[in-house]
Amino acid sequence: MTTAAPHTGTAVGGRTLAHPEREEIRLEAVLHALSDPMRLAVVREMATSEEAELSCSAFDLPVTKSTTTHHFRVLREAGVIVQVYRGTAKLNGLRRDDLDALFPGLLDAVLDAADRQDARLGEG
Amino acid sequence: MTTAAPHTGTAVGGRTLAHPEREEIRLEAVLHALSDPMRLAVVREMATSEEAELSCSAFDLPVTKSTTTHHFRVLREAGVIVQVYRGTAKLNGLRRDDLDALFPGLLDAVLDAADRQDARLGEG
Repeated sequence: MTTAAPHTGTAVGGRTLAHPEREEIRLEAVLHALSDPMRLAVVREMATSEEAELSCSAFDLPVTKSTTTHHFRVLREAGVIVQVYRGTAKLNGLRRDDLDALFPGLLDAVLDAADRQDARLGEG
Repeated sequence: MTTAAPHTGTAVGGRTLAHPEREEIRLEAVLHALSDPMRLAVVREMATSEEAELSCSAFDLPVTKSTTTHHFRVLREAGVIVQVYRGTAKLNGLRRDDLDALFPGLLDAVLDAADRQDARLGEG
């Protein structure tokens, strides 16, 4: 799923969400998307999940639904994740292939940095 | 200079600026600091400069002095740069040693990503 061009997908019910194409993804927007603790946590969970697609409800975030929706939208609009509707569910996938192609090593460096910080602060 | 503990330094005139110690630096704050195009440009220039310390005026930023001051302050408070007074000049240095120790490969990945983006967009 992360390799599919999300802008070409059509969803059940006809609803689609706007995504930047690979070449439209900007480093600054990706860094901004990853700079929020909650969004970073979401991306880390996606990166380690064995599921290619996760519903928003799979993330146990201590915030309101609208805040959750906001964070996922920021991630989607930055090109970090793809969001598609499957029936009534909105499923999320990490755009690892796109990010790795554009910015080799960046996502892994951020994920590694987050792991190290957790270990250092005793939150691992 | 980038290896010195900035919080222990005293400046000519006694003015010092608040810096996080190495262990206080947070990944999220670093990513946020680097997510602004102007701040990213400043960090890239510092990373490639042969000078260990650069005055704010060394950066030809198309913004007002107060905006420039703001951006340098965000970088300093995130732990990305150290700022010290030398007489009337404020000098800036990249905290590469601190960042590399905390988050190995992260700064290099961001700098490489920025270079790649510039090359891709024809702004290299």
